[in-house]
Amino acid sequence: MESGERLPPEVAEQTEVPRAATTGTLFGVGMGPGEPDYLTMRAMRVLERAPVLVHFCKKGRRGNARTIADAVLAAEPGREYPLVYPYTTELHPEHPDYVAALAAFYDDASARLADHLGAGRDVAILSEGDPFFYGSFMHLWRRLKDRFPVEVVPGVTGMSGCWTRAGTPITWGDDVLTVLPATLPHAALVERLRATDAAVLMKLGRHLPKVRAALAEAGVLERAVYVERGTMAGERVIALKDKPDDVAPYFSMVLLPGEGRRP
Amino acid sequence: MESGERLPPEVAEQTEVPRAATTGTLFGVGMGPGEPDYLTMRAMRVLERAPVLVHFCKKGRRGNARTIADAVLAAEPGREYPLVYPYTTELHPEHPDYVAALAAFYDDASARLADHLGAGRDVAILSEGDPFFYGSFMHLWRRLKDRFPVEVVPGVTGMSGCWTRAGTPITWGDDVLTVLPATLPHAALVERLRATDAAVLMKLGRHLPKVRAALAEAGVLERAVYVERGTMAGERVIALKDKPDDVAPYFSMVLLPGEGRRP
Repeated sequence: MESGERLPPEVAEQTEVPRAATTGTLFGVGMGPGEPDYLTMRAMRVLERAPVLVHFCKKGRRGNARTIADAVLAAEPGREYPLVYPYTTELHPEHPDYVAALAAFYDDASARLADHLGAGRDVAILSEGDPFFYGSFMHLWRRLKDRFPVEVVPGVTGMSGCWTRAGTPITWGDDVLTVLPATLPHAALVERLRATDAAVLMKLGRHLPKVRAALAEAGVLERAVYVERGTMAGERVIALKDKPDDVAPYFSMVLLPGEGRRP
Repeated sequence: MESGERLPPEVAEQTEVPRAATTGTLFGVGMGPGEPDYLTMRAMRVLERAPVLVHFCKKGRRGNARTIADAVLAAEPGREYPLVYPYTTELHPEHPDYVAALAAFYDDASARLADHLGAGRDVAILSEGDPFFYGSFMHLWRRLKDRFPVEVVPGVTGMSGCWTRAGTPITWGDDVLTVLPATLPHAALVERLRATDAAVLMKLGRHLPKVRAALAEAGVLERAVYVERGTMAGERVIALKDKPDDVAPYFSMVLLPGEGRRP
């Protein structure tokens, strides 16, 4: 609970002018689900003004959060600060080598951003969806939050974007919603699907066949919707039962809409 | 899955000009968690242009969604269309009389909005948070969606606003998140709290003592945070264990932040 994050906008505003601040502010900017029109007014203002714009990316690729900003930010090499992940999918996220490499990456990135912040320059970290809902921002945030003012700008989550484009409310009345990473074991998925009214299954990747089997075993496969690249170019919405078990890219999820009270 | 909702913005744009459309478009506009700066660009554009602006309210009160718009919309009596709920808290939501009264209310409101839509006027329904995540919008939507084009504008949810102002990520790594209405029985709350890594407890009201007891029985009370009016005037963030069991107003929730992978 950083004091910087609870500043009302008119106070936080002052910290956006580098020359008036002794240190810069660390901004976590929620970039929303993909469609640039779903950026918030506050996100737009921070993106326009911050002298250091950070985005995560894989080696040799543009970052997804940065791509969302294309529609509203010209290429400004002087402000751009890409952080290139040390690994992508070569190692399992729980593998000790992967954890160590990621920790070193976040330590190093934080040290470099601390130099900017210490020199009075605001740093905006572009975060897909909402900065405090999964993602990488929080790993830099926890390394920097006790030394610098912080402002998190919440964003429309990727899952909101997906249920919007699927054209279905996700929760009605008193529905319980469970957000499940598809990385969970089959039995755990089944158990949680049975105990919920509505669900969102994230991080599908190679887990799609397992997710399908778990939904079937829980008796809810018929209601499941597959959404790929929701609100982005190449968007696709299809009943999960009609989706082949081929590939589920990074930007895909399965929705299980609730069926609660509807007077 | 309405064709209207999947129109890319540049296509949906055309339907916003009443004279060019045979029927108006029904917009569900996500108003975000409270802070007007958290409105999206798309929401702003729809609010500026729609000839009919609908908000829900209780008798004798202003609606919360309309209040969020105060900062960006002047009072425009000609466009305003309040829908006054027939009951507030006099009857339980499952009571047959309440269900019947609400159904008649939504039927009547839909019929009146259908007149506007049929006459080619766009209708924007101001929705707290995100239109497809709980709330009243979907009850009008399901009555009108097969007759008129629809565009839902997703919004930052109230819960995102609350964890942002609590200054805590809600989910890390592969955390499971469960969104629980506090109306569930004690035993169901305990069971679901034990089966999740992170939780959001909504609709606290008079259920606060039960929620506290359930969190304690699940062994997670120490981590729980109480947030009242997140991102709005009068915002309050406090450890739940320090919050008296007195009143939990409509705009309050309890957050149980996850503790997942943090390299």
